[in-house]
Amino acid sequence: MALIVQKFGGTSVGNPERIRNVAARIQRACEDGHQIVVVVSAMSGVTDGLIKLAREVNPSPDVREMDVLLATGEQTTIALTAMALHALGQKAVSLTGAQAGIVTDGVHTKAKIANITPKRTRELLADGNVVIVAGFQGADAEGAITTLGRGGSDLTAIALAAALKADLCEIYTDVDGVYTADPRLVKAACKLNEISYDEMLELASLGAKVMQSRSVEFAKKFKVPFSVRSSMNDNPGTLVKEETRKMEDVMIRGISVDKNQAKINIAKAPDRPGIAARLFKPLADAHINVDMIVQNASTEGFTDVSFTVAKDDLTRARKVIEPIAKELGAGTVADFEKIAKLSVVGIGMRSHSGVAADLFETLAANKVNIQMISTSEIKISVIIDAADADRAMNAVHAKFRLGCP
Amino acid sequence: MALIVQKFGGTSVGNPERIRNVAARIQRACEDGHQIVVVVSAMSGVTDGLIKLAREVNPSPDVREMDVLLATGEQTTIALTAMALHALGQKAVSLTGAQAGIVTDGVHTKAKIANITPKRTRELLADGNVVIVAGFQGADAEGAITTLGRGGSDLTAIALAAALKADLCEIYTDVDGVYTADPRLVKAACKLNEISYDEMLELASLGAKVMQSRSVEFAKKFKVPFSVRSSMNDNPGTLVKEETRKMEDVMIRGISVDKNQAKINIAKAPDRPGIAARLFKPLADAHINVDMIVQNASTEGFTDVSFTVAKDDLTRARKVIEPIAKELGAGTVADFEKIAKLSVVGIGMRSHSGVAADLFETLAANKVNIQMISTSEIKISVIIDAADADRAMNAVHAKFRLGCP
Repeated sequence: MALIVQKFGGTSVGNPERIRNVAARIQRACEDGHQIVVVVSAMSGVTDGLIKLAREVNPSPDVREMDVLLATGEQTTIALTAMALHALGQKAVSLTGAQAGIVTDGVHTKAKIANITPKRTRELLADGNVVIVAGFQGADAEGAITTLGRGGSDLTAIALAAALKADLCEIYTDVDGVYTADPRLVKAACKLNEISYDEMLELASLGAKVMQSRSVEFAKKFKVPFSVRSSMNDNPGTLVKEETRKMEDVMIRGISVDKNQAKINIAKAPDRPGIAARLFKPLADAHINVDMIVQNASTEGFTDVSFTVAKDDLTRARKVIEPIAKELGAGTVADFEKIAKLSVVGIGMRSHSGVAADLFETLAANKVNIQMISTSEIKISVIIDAADADRAMNAVHAKFRLGCP
Repeated sequence: MALIVQKFGGTSVGNPERIRNVAARIQRACEDGHQIVVVVSAMSGVTDGLIKLAREVNPSPDVREMDVLLATGEQTTIALTAMALHALGQKAVSLTGAQAGIVTDGVHTKAKIANITPKRTRELLADGNVVIVAGFQGADAEGAITTLGRGGSDLTAIALAAALKADLCEIYTDVDGVYTADPRLVKAACKLNEISYDEMLELASLGAKVMQSRSVEFAKKFKVPFSVRSSMNDNPGTLVKEETRKMEDVMIRGISVDKNQAKINIAKAPDRPGIAARLFKPLADAHINVDMIVQNASTEGFTDVSFTVAKDDLTRARKVIEPIAKELGAGTVADFEKIAKLSVVGIGMRSHSGVAADLFETLAANKVNIQMISTSEIKISVIIDAADADRAMNAVHAKFRLGCP
């Protein structure tokens, strides 16, 4: 008998029929002899409807009250899921985040989980119940309702699995698992059976969009193995877990492409200490996230600096940078929106040499120009022209033989 | 500076615009220098929508989970009302029933309030906030969400007013106050400025429909004065309070008519000890509420017994009674659906004689036949033909000069 935490997203519980389907799936796991804790999101569309309602009474609603409002979404789903299980003759009890002992800090709409006291959950499990916990929400030390922000329900599931020392956490979603590349862009993309936390993190943060990084980081920190799988079929999905020696045999686990970045180039900045700080501190102060930064070698006391930001932040970033560039006596500030960031990820890179060379060679053979390069221990990223992205991705995917065997 | 609890029902907060109107009204009370606690219901239609949703996943949903589900209705309204107050620049914080310290017994969907610890509410008030509490809900000793059943939001308001020792509780609804008779049936009906708890109780339980009896009983027990008034205008409404000597000068406070009763008559029941118990114990066991019971004088060892039940219970009541009547050797069991119960209510009756005579005379003069009579200290009720009800009501209203002066 295993203790399993199952998480179902908004689409999986989007209407009464789907909730009944989810209940049937949960019951099958019970019949297999497992103890089940379920985490559910708000039914798809509900959260957006609540936000719209809030805006109708106040264009900029207070975050504390926003949390009180949004928390009703998951509370609705837990009750309905419990009722659907009862209809199948399965004992089940619902708990709100606060009732499940999920204590967070007081940062409304993006609270961090401080600790979880799963006493009530354990009691209810011991009593033969499926315990259904509202995802995305908790309460701060004073008892005020908080929400965890984007991807919060995944985090609830992973954190509960950690607190309960569950054997497995299953994240049910609308994709079959994690692929070697986005199957919509790369036809040959292959579903991975397993992947390490670090690889998943690099892929998640690079736009694989299956899960938010914070949930994967949490899972890594507390060594919670979890699988990502579809709520629409019985395919096994992808298991995300601690790295094993065997995993290193695979040089590249996957490729991702991020088309939501834009590049800013500052030509001929004076090459002296403190310049980088002078440029990037004001961006940080303006809460603009800078991703890649590349500074070219100095020529006659001047250097070119390029960096990338989210497309949405481009206009703001230019506004911050231009007066500073002027002040520093640098040359033109130029921006480029039509770029893509292509990354290859794999823990095998640590012990295999030549990955970068293979990547650059493949791109060259396909006439893809590289604008920027950045590397980490398990990842190589290049900025290329957006128009080249799909072609480059397919070529690299083929080169590293990532298609299904 | 007074501490006032204001309660707004589902129609008053039925959409974003109405919520903004309610917020403006609350703010005016704040500007008048009062401390305000607000109790709100679910937006009209929301509760019915949730019940429908529940039925789609389970035809007979569990009551515990029903409470988890229904409680989201008021939780939505408290957040929106707080946001609407913020938009007007008024500090406001929302609390769910549980957060407001409303502890109930564990009888889901019809819980009773066990106690209220208004510590958090007091702190927030002292800090200059309007405190907005979710009506209709609380939590049991284990922290499970409970709801109070029909009229629960009124009860929350009255109980909070009692716990906070508020100066006044204002029940905002879609009627202007309590009238001498239903204005839809009696054109001359006049709004009452004040009324005693007992009179309100008799009128409420007799179909005046403004408030549930349990809320009035609670107010009486804890001596909470409250007014019933419209959220759509600034009319002063009706103040419900402890009886004063001056109130006794008014013989009749109001008239009500209840068309939802049905009568059962058992002819020629043997007149011996234990017969009444033999008849009415099984009805109680079947959870059928019997209202009026009349037993005629014995003739040759036999007696006629008549009683009234809610129309909805008539078929069940007959099924219970018929075999017993047979067993007792009684005569025919007959039922009458087309009856109405007309009642005149007033604490002045205690010190004024002749009310009953005046009532019977007026009915006779209008050719209204009386089928049953029942009296209490402050009320006289008669069962008449349903077809006579409106005519009788208007005649009696005129006879006792209940129209506006």
